[in-house]
Amino acid sequence: MSSPSAKRLKLDTEERDSLLSPLLSAGWALVEGRDAIKKDFKFNDFNEAFGFMTRVALKADQMNHHPEWFNVYNSVNITLSTHDCQGLSQRDVNLAKFIDSVAK
Amino acid sequence: MSSPSAKRLKLDTEERDSLLSPLLSAGWALVEGRDAIKKDFKFNDFNEAFGFMTRVALKADQMNHHPEWFNVYNSVNITLSTHDCQGLSQRDVNLAKFIDSVAK
Repeated sequence: MSSPSAKRLKLDTEERDSLLSPLLSAGWALVEGRDAIKKDFKFNDFNEAFGFMTRVALKADQMNHHPEWFNVYNSVNITLSTHDCQGLSQRDVNLAKFIDSVAK
Repeated sequence: MSSPSAKRLKLDTEERDSLLSPLLSAGWALVEGRDAIKKDFKFNDFNEAFGFMTRVALKADQMNHHPEWFNVYNSVNITLSTHDCQGLSQRDVNLAKFIDSVAK
């Protein structure tokens, strides 16, 4: 059962509309079967892909909010969700925005 | 169709016995349905896990032989196979040994 603070962490209906819409327009997609978002990134080569991952890793560790991600060569697939509330929170929105800013 | 050089790249039966056995004893496993090996690693936290990935990434890029890997927090799942020969080659053995040496 979720604690009250975990419930507060989870985006409410209004927040989902306002915060997730821009991300969905930017290429993020809702994951089927769980409350999470995902996006696939392509780079020119592994050096670029891992450089991107390193920038995201530093930010993620600073935020104490970590992605689920898969990499092979120039491809990086990222899924974001918040363990503490078993769903999407403001932290996922913040990390997704940072990720997009770095991937540009 | 594989080129002759791709065929030479792929481990032959004798090499598989001599080179893969030590890896399988060290926790690597054959992947079902494809000619690849995989191993799961656990660390104390994300900092350790991503530090490990960074060391592997530098080596992999130097070797021009890249892993398929998934990370979430302190967990890293690695699959190795060689695209050029659609199966296991000496490169996978070399990278697996390096990975194990770094994970220790």
